Amino acid sequence: MLRTHTCGELRASDASQEVTLCGWVDSYRDHGGGLFVDLRDRYGITQVAFSPPDTPEDLIEQSKTLRAEYVIQVTGTVASRPDGQHNPRLATGDIELRATGLQLLNKAKTPPVSPSEKVTELPGEDLRLKHRYLDLRRPVMQRTMLLRDLITKRMRDYFEENHFVDIETPILGRSTPEGARDYLVPSRVHNGSFYALPQSPQLYKQILMIAGYDRYVQIARCFRDEDLRADRQPEFTQVDLEMSFVDGDDVIGMIDGLMQKLAKDVLDLDIQLPLPRMTYDEAMKRFGHDAPDLRFGMEIADCTDLAAESDFGVFKSVVEGGGFVRAINAKKGTDTYSRRGIDGLTEFVKGYGAKGLAWFRCEDDGKLGSTIAKFFSEELLAKFAERLDAEPGDLILFSAADWLSTCKVLHALRTKVGAEMKLYDPNAMHFSWVVEFPMFEYDDEEQRWNAMHHPFTAPLDEHVELLDSDPEKCRAKAYDLVINGYEAGGGTIRIHDAATQSKVFGLLGIDEATAKDRFGFLLEALAFGAPPHGGLALGLDRVVMLFAKLDNIRDVIAFPKTQKATDLMTEAPGSVDNKQLKELGVKLDL
Amino acid sequence: MLRTHTCGELRASDASQEVTLCGWVDSYRDHGGGLFVDLRDRYGITQVAFSPPDTPEDLIEQSKTLRAEYVIQVTGTVASRPDGQHNPRLATGDIELRATGLQLLNKAKTPPVSPSEKVTELPGEDLRLKHRYLDLRRPVMQRTMLLRDLITKRMRDYFEENHFVDIETPILGRSTPEGARDYLVPSRVHNGSFYALPQSPQLYKQILMIAGYDRYVQIARCFRDEDLRADRQPEFTQVDLEMSFVDGDDVIGMIDGLMQKLAKDVLDLDIQLPLPRMTYDEAMKRFGHDAPDLRFGMEIADCTDLAAESDFGVFKSVVEGGGFVRAINAKKGTDTYSRRGIDGLTEFVKGYGAKGLAWFRCEDDGKLGSTIAKFFSEELLAKFAERLDAEPGDLILFSAADWLSTCKVLHALRTKVGAEMKLYDPNAMHFSWVVEFPMFEYDDEEQRWNAMHHPFTAPLDEHVELLDSDPEKCRAKAYDLVINGYEAGGGTIRIHDAATQSKVFGLLGIDEATAKDRFGFLLEALAFGAPPHGGLALGLDRVVMLFAKLDNIRDVIAFPKTQKATDLMTEAPGSVDNKQLKELGVKLDL
Repeated sequence: MLRTHTCGELRASDASQEVTLCGWVDSYRDHGGGLFVDLRDRYGITQVAFSPPDTPEDLIEQSKTLRAEYVIQVTGTVASRPDGQHNPRLATGDIELRATGLQLLNKAKTPPVSPSEKVTELPGEDLRLKHRYLDLRRPVMQRTMLLRDLITKRMRDYFEENHFVDIETPILGRSTPEGARDYLVPSRVHNGSFYALPQSPQLYKQILMIAGYDRYVQIARCFRDEDLRADRQPEFTQVDLEMSFVDGDDVIGMIDGLMQKLAKDVLDLDIQLPLPRMTYDEAMKRFGHDAPDLRFGMEIADCTDLAAESDFGVFKSVVEGGGFVRAINAKKGTDTYSRRGIDGLTEFVKGYGAKGLAWFRCEDDGKLGSTIAKFFSEELLAKFAERLDAEPGDLILFSAADWLSTCKVLHALRTKVGAEMKLYDPNAMHFSWVVEFPMFEYDDEEQRWNAMHHPFTAPLDEHVELLDSDPEKCRAKAYDLVINGYEAGGGTIRIHDAATQSKVFGLLGIDEATAKDRFGFLLEALAFGAPPHGGLALGLDRVVMLFAKLDNIRDVIAFPKTQKATDLMTEAPGSVDNKQLKELGVKLDL
Repeated sequence: MLRTHTCGELRASDASQEVTLCGWVDSYRDHGGGLFVDLRDRYGITQVAFSPPDTPEDLIEQSKTLRAEYVIQVTGTVASRPDGQHNPRLATGDIELRATGLQLLNKAKTPPVSPSEKVTELPGEDLRLKHRYLDLRRPVMQRTMLLRDLITKRMRDYFEENHFVDIETPILGRSTPEGARDYLVPSRVHNGSFYALPQSPQLYKQILMIAGYDRYVQIARCFRDEDLRADRQPEFTQVDLEMSFVDGDDVIGMIDGLMQKLAKDVLDLDIQLPLPRMTYDEAMKRFGHDAPDLRFGMEIADCTDLAAESDFGVFKSVVEGGGFVRAINAKKGTDTYSRRGIDGLTEFVKGYGAKGLAWFRCEDDGKLGSTIAKFFSEELLAKFAERLDAEPGDLILFSAADWLSTCKVLHALRTKVGAEMKLYDPNAMHFSWVVEFPMFEYDDEEQRWNAMHHPFTAPLDEHVELLDSDPEKCRAKAYDLVINGYEAGGGTIRIHDAATQSKVFGLLGIDEATAKDRFGFLLEALAFGAPPHGGLALGLDRVVMLFAKLDNIRDVIAFPKTQKATDLMTEAPGSVDNKQLKELGVKLDL
């Protein structure tokens, strides 16, 4: 090794040792008689003093040619810093290295993106991407990458303790329909044929259960040829697992334990198990969303019955049309939202399809007031106040529309108001489960039922009969893990018998021939001794983001628009020359 | 959980406990009064007795409907087996489960590939692939998959102890030239552009070192669009690592430690460090190959000087043409190889380009004899005998040709003879390094130098000047790990300064514009403070094969011709419909 220690390692107890460090010149300052250099590597920063009497005069002169990001090897003696010069913000802040030798390992051009933590202003994303190796040198970037590594390692430990087998499933496979579009990979060996990149290892892991592997886990790369969003890249990573001879409680319990371990090992946070669970129906009723942020309350109250008694045209017509009038109470919300603030919220809900925003303010006398109050009797206003537990200073916000629209609007409002009123500690972590999702959702356009998760999801045992009578009411053995209002992962118990599978295919309008064509391999496997099984997939990128306490991982890790968090190169995809295409027997049809 | 224990868990000390097991019916036999079932899961096999008095009569009747591979849940009482019925070959062989309850979880059609260990005759590969989930149920398959999992886990532990960071590099990237052909992935979002799948994360990991990550590791999926061989699939997995501020000894030392740990943890084998090292030149001289099998001797002796003195035309003309006459001595080889056996070896070497096989037998009197002996004086024969340390019964085999051809022929002969004469314990494991590979190899066809590893490989410090004067003699900071005659992995120290890199590009005939076009991103990165760095890649599939003591992993894991060891689906690649192709703006040009 070219070094004896790292730049994060030396302490006062190492004083008077002769050591050698390697690293990058993070910063330097001439102090008249010599030079101080902050030497940086992945492990930390150590101050190096090129000063008399320890450093020979010629070495001091040589040190003055150092510039930012030069790579050097320094030998010297560890010394306690003089009184008053200790730096408590640095792990190595009690010592400095008094240089006696210097080797320039490599020069650096002036960096257009400074990796020094001291530089707080970042250049634009384009420049950061062009010089990704410089951006990735920044300590905050390195911490996030190391956090991802740590989370992955502790996850692997946990799965090993619990007898999971890590199995690599193929990247080059056959195209399977899973909603999004597959990336296709032409094969030169099999000219004219294509592989597909997996959207998830779903079929593979079910096959592995049928093959008797009992507990499977993989940190799996998945691919979707889709338009990009901030949190949806063409390739992403999921923690993919599957278990045999289990029901949903077992899978949930397994992930409960994982979250407890991660919270403890990564954040030193104790969380109580079991994590709270809420049905999908309850989540929609109380929070308007299937991944509610439970770090704060502000639950939805249904006021449809009261609204029906009012003379307010908007409410009346919605109720008469079979719709709903629901509301949230922003406690003491009038402190935050002036009339102008409420106008802002009105504009905001229009972005979610609302025509306007009905609201009440609770006056000092406890009565509700508003521009629309005149359409409500005093008695009715009192009933609203009671329903919403209104106290002076509270702000009540309504949505009147069909059920799903009120959910959408009130969830958006609740999320925005909760953040703006700082109703929760941004460092709090809240883990919970939403369970018993609907089996199906109706596609109005196509006039048919779609599977809410995927067509292999098992219905609740007590709902099997609803498959025939009332599929809309049929709930699934499906569960989503929610952290701070984000769906961190989800899974289901799978159908393992052919009869139920056929019935579900029938409901989805998939006839036997189509099923055989699309899922034949799995269907046949089910007939050769499939155990009851189920599993889950966690979004690793999202879990890292949440544990890093980043509202948006983009804030820290510059995502190339076409690439993922861990990408290093700047441009993708590239062009290929005609020779390569010709070999593929493929030509562009532009 | 549907079970209280696994099928590999119960022991005599559990006797009289009530337990529930789940698993597959591995086999069953009617013993008149009832049924014995061997119940199998990933963890083992437990004998279940459906017999009076423990099992009710109706349950015994029900049990008789069970067939191979049915999935069942059995409740019962653990009981010690009667004296004389213990099965020492089973971990659970001291007990049986006396069934009191039975739940049929799933039926199975008659399996065309039997997963039972009792069935020793395997059907053809096609059938095994078609029913891969059945083939993967076979215990030997499961053991190999579990071995792979174990090796991977212990590797990850080791790299964590040594402060490596696990970083995922992209699968979708730009095409980079690395010898083999890239798989190309058309992008729909960026119509007309293509991603490429990585042949290795080489450039990414060098960028990570320049980005300051210091120690990187990844179990990385790599892709090559090449014709298939038994040990070369279109996708494969390598243990990919890179370290900063190191020289070759540091990387070798790190992998020495890894091999020691794996040998201990996986095989309970103590190996001494440092592992032996040999230069490339020495390996070629002594064994004719850069990955010699050191489990046995039979080293090559150069007899060119002696051959020149003979009257044997073949030897003389080779020597006069500047060629070499080299030989191996198969000690006591005449016990194994009769004259007909030697004829077989002659046919064998013809497959390696030899025209024939000159040989000597050492007679009982210590003299060499052969059909060609007449062309050699007694004195000269004695010199040959001395050079080759010939003793009665030995068989000496020659190759006379140019240097590389003699290497090729004698390596092939040595490998074949060593195996046929059982010169080593097939359970022995031998780890070693071959180091200091040539920087360049000459391409006769293209009349230019090629990089033996890749163009970023650094020359030995003391050979830098040879770059100008004698590139053929220039040796690289390159090292290959050899296990039992297989190259298990290899790596190099990389060039980290622009001047040496330019010189190497120049020697390879890569002009500045081409270099910029092909490697511009890396070259620019080198100018912004690149640390000295180097690394290595291990072939995970091959390491597993070697630790599994399989001569060829194909013997155990059926490779689909187009897929890799861990594949689960049978057919690839698939066809895609025209709609998908049309969306890609691509059409097949057939």
